[in-house]
Amino acid sequence: MRILVMNPNTTASMTASIRATATAAAAPDTEIIATEPLWGPESIEGHFEGYLSAAAVLDRLATLDITFDALVMAGFGEPGREGAQELLDVPVLDITESAAQMAMMLGHAYGIVTTLDRAVPQIEDRLLTAGLLQRCAAVRGTGLGVLELERDGERTVEVIIETAREAVRAGAEVICLGCGGMAGLQEKVAAALGVPVVDGVAAAVKFAEAVVGLGLTTSTGRSFAPPRPKAIGSWPLSAHLRPSPGRAQGSLRDAEFSAQTSGI
Amino acid sequence: MRILVMNPNTTASMTASIRATATAAAAPDTEIIATEPLWGPESIEGHFEGYLSAAAVLDRLATLDITFDALVMAGFGEPGREGAQELLDVPVLDITESAAQMAMMLGHAYGIVTTLDRAVPQIEDRLLTAGLLQRCAAVRGTGLGVLELERDGERTVEVIIETAREAVRAGAEVICLGCGGMAGLQEKVAAALGVPVVDGVAAAVKFAEAVVGLGLTTSTGRSFAPPRPKAIGSWPLSAHLRPSPGRAQGSLRDAEFSAQTSGI
Amino acid sequence: MRILVMNPNTTASMTASIRATATAAAAPDTEIIATEPLWGPESIEGHFEGYLSAAAVLDRLATLDITFDALVMAGFGEPGREGAQELLDVPVLDITESAAQMAMMLGHAYGIVTTLDRAVPQIEDRLLTAGLLQRCAAVRGTGLGVLELERDGERTVEVIIETAREAVRAGAEVICLGCGGMAGLQEKVAAALGVPVVDGVAAAVKFAEAVVGLGLTTSTGRSFAPPRPKAIGSWPLSAHLRPSPGRAQGSLRDAEFSAQTSGI
Amino acid sequence: MRILVMNPNTTASMTASIRATATAAAAPDTEIIATEPLWGPESIEGHFEGYLSAAAVLDRLATLDITFDALVMAGFGEPGREGAQELLDVPVLDITESAAQMAMMLGHAYGIVTTLDRAVPQIEDRLLTAGLLQRCAAVRGTGLGVLELERDGERTVEVIIETAREAVRAGAEVICLGCGGMAGLQEKVAAALGVPVVDGVAAAVKFAEAVVGLGLTTSTGRSFAPPRPKAIGSWPLSAHLRPSPGRAQGSLRDAEFSAQTSGI
Amino acid sequence: MRILVMNPNTTASMTASIRATATAAAAPDTEIIATEPLWGPESIEGHFEGYLSAAAVLDRLATLDITFDALVMAGFGEPGREGAQELLDVPVLDITESAAQMAMMLGHAYGIVTTLDRAVPQIEDRLLTAGLLQRCAAVRGTGLGVLELERDGERTVEVIIETAREAVRAGAEVICLGCGGMAGLQEKVAAALGVPVVDGVAAAVKFAEAVVGLGLTTSTGRSFAPPRPKAIGSWPLSAHLRPSPGRAQGSLRDAEFSAQTSGI
Amino acid sequence: MRILVMNPNTTASMTASIRATATAAAAPDTEIIATEPLWGPESIEGHFEGYLSAAAVLDRLATLDITFDALVMAGFGEPGREGAQELLDVPVLDITESAAQMAMMLGHAYGIVTTLDRAVPQIEDRLLTAGLLQRCAAVRGTGLGVLELERDGERTVEVIIETAREAVRAGAEVICLGCGGMAGLQEKVAAALGVPVVDGVAAAVKFAEAVVGLGLTTSTGRSFAPPRPKAIGSWPLSAHLRPSPGRAQGSLRDAEFSAQTSGI
Repeated sequence: MRILVMNPNTTASMTASIRATATAAAAPDTEIIATEPLWGPESIEGHFEGYLSAAAVLDRLATLDITFDALVMAGFGEPGREGAQELLDVPVLDITESAAQMAMMLGHAYGIVTTLDRAVPQIEDRLLTAGLLQRCAAVRGTGLGVLELERDGERTVEVIIETAREAVRAGAEVICLGCGGMAGLQEKVAAALGVPVVDGVAAAVKFAEAVVGLGLTTSTGRSFAPPRPKAIGSWPLSAHLRPSPGRAQGSLRDAEFSAQTSGI
Repeated sequence: MRILVMNPNTTASMTASIRATATAAAAPDTEIIATEPLWGPESIEGHFEGYLSAAAVLDRLATLDITFDALVMAGFGEPGREGAQELLDVPVLDITESAAQMAMMLGHAYGIVTTLDRAVPQIEDRLLTAGLLQRCAAVRGTGLGVLELERDGERTVEVIIETAREAVRAGAEVICLGCGGMAGLQEKVAAALGVPVVDGVAAAVKFAEAVVGLGLTTSTGRSFAPPRPKAIGSWPLSAHLRPSPGRAQGSLRDAEFSAQTSGI
Repeated sequence: MRILVMNPNTTASMTASIRATATAAAAPDTEIIATEPLWGPESIEGHFEGYLSAAAVLDRLATLDITFDALVMAGFGEPGREGAQELLDVPVLDITESAAQMAMMLGHAYGIVTTLDRAVPQIEDRLLTAGLLQRCAAVRGTGLGVLELERDGERTVEVIIETAREAVRAGAEVICLGCGGMAGLQEKVAAALGVPVVDGVAAAVKFAEAVVGLGLTTSTGRSFAPPRPKAIGSWPLSAHLRPSPGRAQGSLRDAEFSAQTSGI
Repeated sequence: MRILVMNPNTTASMTASIRATATAAAAPDTEIIATEPLWGPESIEGHFEGYLSAAAVLDRLATLDITFDALVMAGFGEPGREGAQELLDVPVLDITESAAQMAMMLGHAYGIVTTLDRAVPQIEDRLLTAGLLQRCAAVRGTGLGVLELERDGERTVEVIIETAREAVRAGAEVICLGCGGMAGLQEKVAAALGVPVVDGVAAAVKFAEAVVGLGLTTSTGRSFAPPRPKAIGSWPLSAHLRPSPGRAQGSLRDAEFSAQTSGI
Repeated sequence: MRILVMNPNTTASMTASIRATATAAAAPDTEIIATEPLWGPESIEGHFEGYLSAAAVLDRLATLDITFDALVMAGFGEPGREGAQELLDVPVLDITESAAQMAMMLGHAYGIVTTLDRAVPQIEDRLLTAGLLQRCAAVRGTGLGVLELERDGERTVEVIIETAREAVRAGAEVICLGCGGMAGLQEKVAAALGVPVVDGVAAAVKFAEAVVGLGLTTSTGRSFAPPRPKAIGSWPLSAHLRPSPGRAQGSLRDAEFSAQTSGI
Repeated sequence: MRILVMNPNTTASMTASIRATATAAAAPDTEIIATEPLWGPESIEGHFEGYLSAAAVLDRLATLDITFDALVMAGFGEPGREGAQELLDVPVLDITESAAQMAMMLGHAYGIVTTLDRAVPQIEDRLLTAGLLQRCAAVRGTGLGVLELERDGERTVEVIIETAREAVRAGAEVICLGCGGMAGLQEKVAAALGVPVVDGVAAAVKFAEAVVGLGLTTSTGRSFAPPRPKAIGSWPLSAHLRPSPGRAQGSLRDAEFSAQTSGI
């Protein structure tokens, strides 16, 4: 089967890292393809960027010319999954819920280590809506921004371990890595902590395999029925956006539009 | 003070109706301006359209060349508010939470009458995240789509009353009209039911006046801190979208881009 | 419109302070009148006094010879509101729920700074019943009694700020002042904390204006239907209490009966 | 030991019925005394009357010239218990919580049959605050007012049984009689239903015996610390109320003040 | 990998049916072995039998002379999983939680169709403890006993479909088959309902593959640390039970001890 | 009346201590008999042992040749009660729920002091299922194993007091002793803490007297209906277990089977 893994931000190096983790987790006969949106923020650290990214991801999904058996959305605590569930007829897993669900298979309570403190309430709200918050003992921020994670790998691991220890003291028996950019660090962190560490990308890939393996997909019975036919102005957006001059057509993982620095 | 009321869809007649309700609710010295996004769905009846609309609303907000003292977001059960809270330094009210909050001032439990049944779980989830679900006795759909509400006004009122009666039987002591497109019907429905009926647009306008009147605004302490500076590709979108040829520049309430029918 | 603000205790200086805060918050065309019960405790610091006060407030309301458009009850965490909602046909706001509701418009989670630690569970229970506890990050006592608040204003502000900082560390993004006697301190506290500070009296006045402005009032549909006709012995109490000899008839804010020191 | 059972309303025939039920439930060496307030409503069917009654009960407790080992408060869903817990140094049980607690010893979920439908949310709120709502499958009103219960005993039992059947269909495995005025009917109702029926007065008497038997009493550690010394105007109220002329001093169960019909 | 699937009752035909479903769900390189306890009830329809079965399953696990990579416990709503998690160092999945978790990947709310009505509260309690109840719209009993399921296959499917329809009307968007004995019926039920149907055995097998595939296992950090060394009388029980005379040693799926009919 | 108190482990000295506490708590005309299972673990410190014990207790109950009016199960946080409720037609109380329920009669929030930290989530889960967790401020482990409690009585009391103080700081107004092996220490702990201390064995005995005194017993209406007739292999287990040679028949409190040390 073929699983599409969607990095919600436009940073290609993060797509590469997520793709590597997904590929390592996948069964031998599972093909992983990974991409990112054609426009939108280079990292997602708040609601504003999350909502832009949600639309950018849906735009990307609406214009992709490939088929796949399941979608994994690799943004932690970020919005958009329900939209993809309506749009696609293949199952959609996301790494927040998948990490929590796998953690609940392994221990009584789990904790999440994420990037900035400002993400903590956002993640808690996603878990609340998902019906998965009850057994969450703690969500803790490391203070590291999403793009800082890649800068000093050793320091990143240290800070994650330290923060995870706090979560364990708060009752967590399993730790979830709460950012797609932490993919691949689970073994080092687990070795230091002595409790299982779940990477959401890996978990979501396995759950996608599980759901597809049973021939199941999203229910269209109520919440996630397909969108009703209607006029949507300038949709899909990327078909109406002016491409940057002199830019070659990208591959599945190349952004086709220019990323401009916005001071906001 | 000046309050901006944002219709989340691109249907100008709905903007007009929302503007009328907001104006009727506003204090004499409150100026109401209303607009809608420049692109996106003509109505919002699900998560997919909701996420598109959230980005379209943020895009509209980022490019509006006016000042205002508060924003009222007029989508019921729809996402995006937290993004606007990060983006703006004026208070942001939305009609879902405002309707529920005003209802809780008037009775022990409240009910919501909305459009399609598929919106019910989405509205419940918004209330859950908002911490306002506990005293919600029922959310009920009328079966009418958003744009159908305007078609046969009399029938619409009848169906709303009938559905509201079910909510009252389920324990609701106050009824909230659960769609921006129902704005203005509250008196007729209240007369028939004998319990207070809250229109979210009117409630949000009054709450915006209340918050502004006390000199308060959104906390930047954690969840709604301003977005961090970073590269956002093709942002703001409307600056990169190709305008339709031969289209005059619209007023605050005219869409500048073409609305194309998408069969999805 | 005319809003009656009811101080639940018999301390006239506290009525004056509450009246000042309410007046400062009110719109230019809103008339604020304030009073306190004719009998009962000079401050309310527990359930026993709260229940006495509830009856004293209802007695006061039943015998007041004035009309008003809304009632604001200025006791924080104290009982009685539902009784007034049954008794009156104008809307009734109280400062506990109003503070929490306004805080929820401004941030993701809020905290409350109150007087004695013993009030903490009582406040939490009021919020629980009101359906507003979910987004409360912390309720913290300053250790100052109600009447101590007025004694050393500077020290009071310092202690409130210090206690509010604990609530912020616990996740509060907005702080509510949890005692009618703290009315007027919100600006100093906000300046020190860097997050919005809500005074419940001010919030309740604005919400009263909002509800009255929309022509709404308490639902009589179920919980708050008017009392059924029946015999009530010695009611209203103040009509049966022996007035203190040599005491002139008080104004709206003068207690007509003697306050006796009870060692309990 | 001696248990004081307090009927919260002024209807002496209801005191007598409650006394009989309490006496039947008590151990041979337990003395039951029962009384009612000296003033206040003849029945309690809402919040307004409940708050008056709470103060009237506290007034009665403050002026009673007898000693007792425990207090049972016989109002179902009514306020005031926490005040008595602060005032007294003997344990205080009330029939709402006691009925629910005993029901939870007997089955997985319980239901409550009460008087008027308007009492339902009030009872649910008491259970919510008490932390006992989770296993409550249903609270249902019979439509009978408190004083109607005594009028046609046979009809009363029939209606209670019918209403209890609804609660059983909603999942209740045990039924609680939700009004002090239903005391004594439990056997007839149980025989018809085939599930255990708990009378709150009987349950509270047994729990009072249990608590006293172990030498335990209310914690003064925080919520229920004794009231702080302070001035309380006109307190205790009954010492300041004008007695009705020509009225003999009552026994423990005679109201000393006139009951006047108030049309409210 | 090798997954052990444990039927909690002693009915070998049910073990066979569960084995078949598990095998059909498993990946090609997954070996399924299935067995049942050596003693205990032939079906589990209540708490008493559930507790016997839990001990019998643990006894079976303690004496099995084979190795495996994960355990799937095939009792729906039944106790014992946490004991196996302590006892084993391989992951333990059970069909109640697995069904709910997979359902939550496919829809907003799910429903469960089980056997007898008496099992409903037991299942709800398991989901509550597991932290998975929030998104459960309904648990409904068919009225069929566990062993009746196999008697008239066609009637069984009809009754399951009918009961599932009720759950859908109550908001379920996905249906879980709530008994190991229903394994294999999911396709027929799904075809009739038009919403996804999850069989817990299949789901648990896929999740076991997922967990093992990532090299994860139960956390020993707190709740599920291995049992402490201590004296356990007559343990393991099957080593102390008198074998039935003239009985050959069974295979992995044959009970070695006599099943005696107990009228209880 | 006669109450059977069941120690869930096989340690006779603990049975003796529990019997002493129960006897001290019982009314003069209540006869206490106490026993323990004939097989199973010498102490219960986790789920595995808890499930063995549950079956051993049910086995003991099924083969006891005496009559009694109520059962008290003396394991704290341990499983099995619902099984006994199905099996017996007399009421069944357990010490976890009884301690919590009595604590809730005495204060607003309670805390539990137990043995090992690993028991904490297990106890919280029992309270959650029982619907009694809401008012639990803290469950704290002393770090002492069950059998260590008896070794150094003075040190045990000190550690319990120290741990209880933490619970009080977390909001507990009443402390529950969270292990049958702590029975009898309540007075010393209460004297040191200044808040009421509840021993679950004593509480359960009083509640058993209360329930029996009112002629009530477990509802057979749904959850706790008697087990259905069916084949149960090797049941009751003790009738099939090989007795140890040369062992005299025990009294009600002597184990008839050998306790073997299992290293697990």
